[in-house]
Amino acid sequence: MIQNFQIRDRRFQLNGGAGSDAIHRDPIYSYAVTELADDSGITGTGFAFTLGEGNDLVCKAAAFYAEQLKGKDIEELMANFGHVFNQFSNQQQFRWLGPHKGVVHLALASVTNACYDLWAKKRGLPLWKLLIDLSPEQIINTLDLSYLEDVLTREQALQLMQDGLTGKQERNDIVLKGYPGYDTSVGWFNYDDEMVRANCKKAIAAGFTAMKLKVGSTDPKRDIRRAHIVREEAGDHCKVMLDANQQWTLPQALSICKELQSMQPYWIEEPTHPDDVLAHKTLADAIAPTKIALGEHVPNRIIFKNYLQTGCAGFMQADAVRLGGVSEFITVSLLCKKYGVPVVPHVGDMGQLHQHLVLFNHISMGHEALFLEHIPHLQKHFIHPAQIVNGVYQTPEVPGSSCDLKN
Amino acid sequence: MIQNFQIRDRRFQLNGGAGSDAIHRDPIYSYAVTELADDSGITGTGFAFTLGEGNDLVCKAAAFYAEQLKGKDIEELMANFGHVFNQFSNQQQFRWLGPHKGVVHLALASVTNACYDLWAKKRGLPLWKLLIDLSPEQIINTLDLSYLEDVLTREQALQLMQDGLTGKQERNDIVLKGYPGYDTSVGWFNYDDEMVRANCKKAIAAGFTAMKLKVGSTDPKRDIRRAHIVREEAGDHCKVMLDANQQWTLPQALSICKELQSMQPYWIEEPTHPDDVLAHKTLADAIAPTKIALGEHVPNRIIFKNYLQTGCAGFMQADAVRLGGVSEFITVSLLCKKYGVPVVPHVGDMGQLHQHLVLFNHISMGHEALFLEHIPHLQKHFIHPAQIVNGVYQTPEVPGSSCDLKN
Repeated sequence: MIQNFQIRDRRFQLNGGAGSDAIHRDPIYSYAVTELADDSGITGTGFAFTLGEGNDLVCKAAAFYAEQLKGKDIEELMANFGHVFNQFSNQQQFRWLGPHKGVVHLALASVTNACYDLWAKKRGLPLWKLLIDLSPEQIINTLDLSYLEDVLTREQALQLMQDGLTGKQERNDIVLKGYPGYDTSVGWFNYDDEMVRANCKKAIAAGFTAMKLKVGSTDPKRDIRRAHIVREEAGDHCKVMLDANQQWTLPQALSICKELQSMQPYWIEEPTHPDDVLAHKTLADAIAPTKIALGEHVPNRIIFKNYLQTGCAGFMQADAVRLGGVSEFITVSLLCKKYGVPVVPHVGDMGQLHQHLVLFNHISMGHEALFLEHIPHLQKHFIHPAQIVNGVYQTPEVPGSSCDLKN
Repeated sequence: MIQNFQIRDRRFQLNGGAGSDAIHRDPIYSYAVTELADDSGITGTGFAFTLGEGNDLVCKAAAFYAEQLKGKDIEELMANFGHVFNQFSNQQQFRWLGPHKGVVHLALASVTNACYDLWAKKRGLPLWKLLIDLSPEQIINTLDLSYLEDVLTREQALQLMQDGLTGKQERNDIVLKGYPGYDTSVGWFNYDDEMVRANCKKAIAAGFTAMKLKVGSTDPKRDIRRAHIVREEAGDHCKVMLDANQQWTLPQALSICKELQSMQPYWIEEPTHPDDVLAHKTLADAIAPTKIALGEHVPNRIIFKNYLQTGCAGFMQADAVRLGGVSEFITVSLLCKKYGVPVVPHVGDMGQLHQHLVLFNHISMGHEALFLEHIPHLQKHFIHPAQIVNGVYQTPEVPGSSCDLKN
C-alpha cells in the first residue's frame, strides 16, 4: 500500500554549452521527481523533465495527483491503470489548465512513472521485463485510449498487441545484444566548430554509428558548414541527424531544409512550431524523401494521432517524461505501430527509463529496434546509470525503471 | 513607470449548478489576477480564467513574468508589445513547459491583460476606445505574428487593418446601439428540465434572442429532449447553440450531432477534444451545413491557424483570458478575418474585457457584430460590471478594461 509520497525539485547545472540548442540556449536539466513510499519499504521513483525555471510548478501539480494515491495498492492500480490515468487527467478543475498538456500533464507524467517504477520494484523485475511478460489484455488495461476511437479502438489495440506475439521470441535476442544508441552530444548549439569536429571523432571511437547536430542558427550558413563537418567526420556510413528545435518559420524551413539535403541527413528534427501539424505536412511533402522527426513537444496522444493521420513524420520522438508518462508513451507507440512509423524516443530522462521502453516496443510490439538517443551529462546523478558499451545500451537488470537519483 | 506588482488568487464559488457542463461538473470560477502598480498611482489589472484547483500555479507563473516589468514605462512597452510578448513567451526555460500553452501561457495572459488595462487607464480611455484610435501600424506593433508567416505576414496583417478603415466610421454606430449579447446561463448541465424551461422564458423576457444549452449527457436522449425544450421556448426566430464541452468521441459526435440537427442549432460547440483538428474537420464535413464553434481550449494562434486552414470551424471562440491575453486575441481575430470566420469570444472574463474587444473587432477590423456571450454569475464581484439592457451590452465608458474586482 502506498503510504506517503515526497516530491523533489532537482536541478542540475550543465557546463560549457552542453544541452544548448537554437531555442534553449542555457538550459538547466531538471526533474520534478515523485517518490511513492510503499508500506513494503519500497519507494517508486518517477519524474518529468524540464529545463529549470518552473520545475517547482510541475512539482506542486504532481503533489496534487500523488496525494490521491495514498492508501492505494500498486498492483490494484496497475491492473486497470488506463482508468486511473483517465480519471486523473480529467479531474475537472485541473483539466481546465490543459487539457492534457503543459504543467499539469508533466506532473501526471511524474506520478505515473513513479507508479510504474514501484510496480516493477515490487515485482523484483526491471521494467522492460515486467512489461514484456504482460498479456496483450494486461497491457491494454494500463492505457487510456479515449479520443482515439476513430483510429484505434480497444479491440484494434488488443489486436496490435496480439499481432506482436508473432516473432516475439526471436526479437527477445535484443536483450543480450543490447539496444543501439545514438550520440546527441557531439553538436550542441553553443559548441564551436572545432569542438563539434573533435566530438564526432570521439563518438566514432566510442562505437556510435549515428549522431546529431543542433541547427537553427541565425545565419543558415553556420548550420550548413557545421552539418558538413559532421558528415565529413562521420563518413557516409554513419547516420547524421539535424535538430532545429522549432527555430524556423515554415518559409525558412522550406528554404534551409532544401540546402541541408546536400549532406544527406537521416532526419531533420523539429523544424518548426510543434503545434503546427499542417506546416509539418507542407514541409514533409516539399522535402521528401528527406524525413522529419518530431515529438518531444507533442504533449499527448491526440496530437500524435493528428500528426500520424497527416503522414508527415518519418520518426516519432515520443518521450515518457514529457507525455503523460509510460502509459501514454505506450499508447502513442501503439498508434505509431498502426501507422507504420518508428518510435525513436526523445530522452528527457537521459535514456534511463526509455532503455526499458524501447525494449518493450521492439520485443512485444514489433517496432524496429532502430536506436535510442544517448545523452551522458547526468550519468553521475543516477544510482544505476545507463551503461553504453561500444555505442550500445546494455540491458538493465536491476528491478525498477532505473530512475532513482542520488541525493 | 511600473513600480511593483501584486498577484491575487481569487476564487468564487458558484451555486446550484451554475457553470456546470458535461466535463466540468463542479467548477469554481477563478481568476489569477495581476495588478501592476504604476508610479502615477494607477493600477493595471488583468487576469486569466481557471476553474479553481491550480489557479495558484497560474499565479506563481504570472509573478515570474510580472517581475520583469518592474521599472518599465507602459507607453514604451505597448509601443512595441509584439516584441515584448514574443520575448516573454519564448523565455527559454519557461517555454519548455508549453510552449505557448497551459499554465505558463495563462500566466502570460494575466500579465498581458494587466498591461493593456494600465495602458488604457493611463490614457484615461476605455480600452475599446484606445484600440480603435490606434493606427494599423500601431496595432500590428502590439502583435507577435511569429509562426504565422505562411499565412499572415506583417505586411498582410497591416493590409487587413488598412482594409478595415473602409466603413469604420459607419461601424462606429455600434457604440451607441450597444453590442448584442447571448445568454449562456439558461441551460447549465446540472440544471433540471424545468429550470432550463424557466430560464429560457426569463432570457426571452430579458430581451435575449440567442441562448445556449449544455449537452454531452451520458444518455444522448437527455440532450435531445432538452434541446427541443429550449427550441420550443425560444421559438424559431431565436438562435439556439449547443455546447458539448469536449465530451464526445468522434464516433459519438458523428452520431449525436446528426440527431441534434432536427432542432436547428445555430452551432454545435466543442464537440470533441480541442487538440483534435482533424476530428473536427471530419465532423464538420459530415454535419454541414450545421456549423461547429470552438476555441475556448485552443491555447495559441498557431493551433487557431491550423483550425482555420482546415476550414472546419464556422465560429471561432477565442478568449483573451485563455489565449496569451489581448495581444494574441487580436492576432487570432486578424487570422479569422483573413479566413472569413466570425469571432464570437468565449467569456472566461464574464464579458468584462471582451465587451471592449468585440467593439474593436467590429469597428476597426470589420468583423461582423454577431453577439457576445453573457454570463452573469460574477457580476457582483466586479467594480464596473458589464451592463446588459434588453439583451444588449451597453458600451463601457470608464477608463481601462473593466477588469477590476472588488476586494
